[in-house]
Amino acid sequence: MNTVNFAQKFAKLADHWSPHVIAQLNDLHVKIAKIKGEFVWHSHPKTDELFIVNKGEMVIHLRDRQVAMKAGDMFVVPKGVEHKPVAEEECEIVMIEPAGTVNTGDAGGDLTVDQPPWI
Amino acid sequence: MNTVNFAQKFAKLADHWSPHVIAQLNDLHVKIAKIKGEFVWHSHPKTDELFIVNKGEMVIHLRDRQVAMKAGDMFVVPKGVEHKPVAEEECEIVMIEPAGTVNTGDAGGDLTVDQPPWI
Repeated sequence: MNTVNFAQKFAKLADHWSPHVIAQLNDLHVKIAKIKGEFVWHSHPKTDELFIVNKGEMVIHLRDRQVAMKAGDMFVVPKGVEHKPVAEEECEIVMIEPAGTVNTGDAGGDLTVDQPPWI
Repeated sequence: MNTVNFAQKFAKLADHWSPHVIAQLNDLHVKIAKIKGEFVWHSHPKTDELFIVNKGEMVIHLRDRQVAMKAGDMFVVPKGVEHKPVAEEECEIVMIEPAGTVNTGDAGGDLTVDQPPWI
């Protein structure tokens, strides 16, 4: 593989809530997405999910609290914990989780992307 | 857990080549290190190893080429591939790999850290 530059990859993303894969580490995918607005409440029953904010700000809503994140922050949503990402303005995020982890987890719905493409 | 801010974590690191754990994702550790100079040639027979440069520049020497990285770049060294990180000036790096992966892999030596502490 070659080096992957985060800024160059994000520059290629147009749509919000459209995850794309930028690297693989063993059985995990490193994914990026631009987000704006509210995602759906969901959980991933079989895996933790790592979030890094590359640019902007987001809030990960949990049922008992809200986790405010800005560029340079990382947070791991534990396996099985319900969460809802929200971004008032466009925000660039990196996610790491096992390949095949569906973005909407157990919730489904219109925002579901079963197999995010590589970018 | 709480959010982890990369800059705040790196500010706590003093020594070079001293990896510290800042997060866990399933059976993986997210680790940070400040590096300067040459590391040892080594490989990790059982796992890929993900590198992200947070600040500065580094070169990952492979046996057949050199991979130049700057802040905002990511590279995955495949399982079993010999590599040697080198940084002319101090460089801040993030590494993700299974917990228990030893920094010097199969090479051993003075720079070996069997169980990096959390920071």
